[in-house]
Amino acid sequence: MRWDRPSLHETVLSLPGWVVGRIDYDQVYPTDEERMRLAVTLASENVARESGGPFGAAVFERESGRLIAVGVNSVVRLNNSTAHAEMIALQLAERRIASHSLAADGHPAHELFTSCAPCAMCLGAVLWSGVTRLVTAAQREDAERIQFDEGPVFAENYTYLRARGIEIVDGLLRDESRAVLEAYRARGGAIY
Amino acid sequence: MRWDRPSLHETVLSLPGWVVGRIDYDQVYPTDEERMRLAVTLASENVARESGGPFGAAVFERESGRLIAVGVNSVVRLNNSTAHAEMIALQLAERRIASHSLAADGHPAHELFTSCAPCAMCLGAVLWSGVTRLVTAAQREDAERIQFDEGPVFAENYTYLRARGIEIVDGLLRDESRAVLEAYRARGGAIY
Repeated sequence: MRWDRPSLHETVLSLPGWVVGRIDYDQVYPTDEERMRLAVTLASENVARESGGPFGAAVFERESGRLIAVGVNSVVRLNNSTAHAEMIALQLAERRIASHSLAADGHPAHELFTSCAPCAMCLGAVLWSGVTRLVTAAQREDAERIQFDEGPVFAENYTYLRARGIEIVDGLLRDESRAVLEAYRARGGAIY
Repeated sequence: MRWDRPSLHETVLSLPGWVVGRIDYDQVYPTDEERMRLAVTLASENVARESGGPFGAAVFERESGRLIAVGVNSVVRLNNSTAHAEMIALQLAERRIASHSLAADGHPAHELFTSCAPCAMCLGAVLWSGVTRLVTAAQREDAERIQFDEGPVFAENYTYLRARGIEIVDGLLRDESRAVLEAYRARGGAIY
């Protein structure tokens, strides 16, 4: 068999249908709380609509608060183990500004808000994306309490990111995000 | 502005055109050397055809050696900082078997061959993908010599993966892969 099927050489990362038409693009979210509430709301809706795990993320222009892209966990829906909320938000943001770096010349600084502290893969992706600020809600132990695994993330990872100029704020709206994790567990959602 | 543009809610990961029609799918690569030579050849061709960075990867069925999917670094071509060779190969493999886990029931064990030791992001992705074996050619210091950054990868990351049952073999065909890195530098390829 040769490359006669597109499925062998391309794959599509897409948001679930309910997101489309719902988010106001270019909307400005003035405060950190409003920005994080969007990420947590996306996580919550992802659970309620059964489109994926209890995780949401969003990329904003750091100074203006303008929304650039969003993501929700889509691992099972897309048959893609890398389709974490943060990965989707970062890739859609890069597509939107048409650059492989959100720190590219001529663009304002960007930041990532995520409803849960990133796993090992996503933390690496944060570094490559060029965002200059990372804000998290639920923490590693909250995810682990419902049996989600974060992988090999150590204090040194955060030290490394900070040394590269990334500002990190942990635990904003943590209780709200933790409630989404618990709701997911209560529904018997898949753990992977 | 609402979600009136597909670019806001989906993105496509695709291999460069030269790969399509060139790779024999389902081909069996009996030995580790043959498997790695495919990954290194993909890296080399990616440089020669100027479609991306000097990195290639391939997923095989571990026992049979049947090729499942390939990847080449596509960061600049796709405007996607996550489009590393390993990430593309793993996602295409998961799409091909229609599961978010290459360790899913009813499937044989899978392994990833990569022309260079994975960065922090890709090493996390290896864990989530369900491959049970990782084989690398060039090492971190080889990539760093041409100014490619691997990010926060520590000995503990490898300890963690091994503890999770992933067999790791380092440095197979290292010299051949290192030559590809040097060729890329000699051509003045973009470093990111």
